[in-house]
Amino acid sequence: MTTTNLENLQFRLAARPVGMVKDSDWQKVSEPLRELAEGEVQIKTQYLSLDPAMRGWMNDAKSYIRPVAIGEVMRAGGIGEVVASKSPKFAVGDIVSGGLGVQTHWTGAADDKSAALYKVDTRLAPATTWLNTLGMPGMTAYFGLLESGQPKAGETVVVSGAAGAVGQTVGQVAKQLGCRVVGIAGGKAKCDFVVNELGFDACIDYKEGSVRDGLKEHCPKGVDVYFDNVGGEILDTVLTRINMKARIVICGAISQYNNTTAVKGPANYLSLLVNRARMEGIVVFDYADRYHLGVAALAGWLKEGKIKSKEDVVDGIENFPQALNMLFDGKNFGKLVLKVA
Amino acid sequence: MTTTNLENLQFRLAARPVGMVKDSDWQKVSEPLRELAEGEVQIKTQYLSLDPAMRGWMNDAKSYIRPVAIGEVMRAGGIGEVVASKSPKFAVGDIVSGGLGVQTHWTGAADDKSAALYKVDTRLAPATTWLNTLGMPGMTAYFGLLESGQPKAGETVVVSGAAGAVGQTVGQVAKQLGCRVVGIAGGKAKCDFVVNELGFDACIDYKEGSVRDGLKEHCPKGVDVYFDNVGGEILDTVLTRINMKARIVICGAISQYNNTTAVKGPANYLSLLVNRARMEGIVVFDYADRYHLGVAALAGWLKEGKIKSKEDVVDGIENFPQALNMLFDGKNFGKLVLKVA
Repeated sequence: MTTTNLENLQFRLAARPVGMVKDSDWQKVSEPLRELAEGEVQIKTQYLSLDPAMRGWMNDAKSYIRPVAIGEVMRAGGIGEVVASKSPKFAVGDIVSGGLGVQTHWTGAADDKSAALYKVDTRLAPATTWLNTLGMPGMTAYFGLLESGQPKAGETVVVSGAAGAVGQTVGQVAKQLGCRVVGIAGGKAKCDFVVNELGFDACIDYKEGSVRDGLKEHCPKGVDVYFDNVGGEILDTVLTRINMKARIVICGAISQYNNTTAVKGPANYLSLLVNRARMEGIVVFDYADRYHLGVAALAGWLKEGKIKSKEDVVDGIENFPQALNMLFDGKNFGKLVLKVA
Repeated sequence: MTTTNLENLQFRLAARPVGMVKDSDWQKVSEPLRELAEGEVQIKTQYLSLDPAMRGWMNDAKSYIRPVAIGEVMRAGGIGEVVASKSPKFAVGDIVSGGLGVQTHWTGAADDKSAALYKVDTRLAPATTWLNTLGMPGMTAYFGLLESGQPKAGETVVVSGAAGAVGQTVGQVAKQLGCRVVGIAGGKAKCDFVVNELGFDACIDYKEGSVRDGLKEHCPKGVDVYFDNVGGEILDTVLTRINMKARIVICGAISQYNNTTAVKGPANYLSLLVNRARMEGIVVFDYADRYHLGVAALAGWLKEGKIKSKEDVVDGIENFPQALNMLFDGKNFGKLVLKVA
């Protein structure tokens, strides 16, 4: 086996944030790399995935996954290179994806359940794409849209956070299925990108003018599927424009994650009754046994140039705290990735 | 043909109510009965169905049915006897159910679409049961529970408005399907009735103690199906206790119908995400082509004594305004029916 003589630089959760995450909520720790035990591997992190869901993991609340403990390395998905191995499962030089955490090196059992490591083929797509379209955001988009949204050709699909990690793939997949696709995003640059580069039919800039007017203009036949990444006022507005038997996919509520007061419930939820519509929550892990099918479909479309994978790469693990907050300020443009090595 | 020499006494909508309906929102009108044209029938109203949905029909808002116009006879379902007929469809003496409106006599085409008249067999069940378990509330309960709630034997079903028209049948049908059934109702008398007479496993009195504690006590394995007739705080509380893949059926929101401020949206709706659960709106008219199947199933259980139909009958059409408001004060005990003749 080979070892490196580097330290492992980590960001650990120092305090449970109230509202937006502050620098003091993090503890930066450097510790020596340890020797491997039998069955273990050591991975040098290349890229980390920064996701809105991470904010939820920092709260001490019952959710679909246990909270990160105080003092624990912050949970994060990532991609890295195997630099040492005492397991037949991975060889030095393999590129693997999994729950590496916010640290420069991950060391542990090759079959660790919470890391859930798997090899990726960077000849098929670059590493950052494996954290985006071919990673959790892509799987969330693909299975959430198909299984819960159930769009049919000719229907109108609206997606919020349209330039973000999940939204970009939701809209592009819906276009492949023959839907009219309208995005909602913040700012002219994102909206132009979504229409001109990703091929959405239209994009509503929620920072400029009214979402209600935008929906009236761009969804003249109403909304059949709404894929919601943001919650709050935008969800409430879309509820007023849904069609009979509409499907609302609740994927996230980024507008509400840093609330210090109660989450704003959708006051227009009785539109579900009037329209015999449904609202359903999805979590990507439920589709784990079929990820390979999602990867195959999305990789095929990527290869054919039918869809694109757009990442926003921030360089340097030391910038992790500021980079994470970009998500909640809407500053990232595409899937946010932190380059570590 | 036979005619009566009576006047037709009607309640017409005089003004759109703000908040609770006031007496001045109604206009009581008496007009002479008219002669029938070819194809028409005249029906003498026996009983009228008073339903929470009627409050919504009085608002000038887009909904699943057009609002009642100012000056129009208030819409209501009812049962009556054919007292005159120039149609081969109905004979004098037939008992029919349909949209008779709040009036002593309905006169119109036998095939009028909005009245949607159909003969009922009062040997099978009394007239009031045809407005309850075998009428719209029963159909709402039966199809809403089965189609949207999809309860399985052994699951826990919670229903609010448990002693009301829809709730009583939801719970009893769920018991027939082998579910654990917990009602939510206001007051000890209703709760006792629901448990002792209707056979629910438990009933939580929302006027006495905390619904949250009641759910913890009576739903130790969580909530798989919640059939919501009330909305508001109770919906929000149940959302904190749902299981993975739970189904919430949105049938109504009686707590919100007289709001003068915005409807309270369910602040805990992100529980849908955590639990991959869904919330779906239902409207009974969607099942119209299968009402006969619902009637057959429910009439069978009624005949075998396996379920009961509980009505609260108020006497006299002149008491219509006060009787309607009983629904929103929670004063009715069972399906509210107005006896007209």
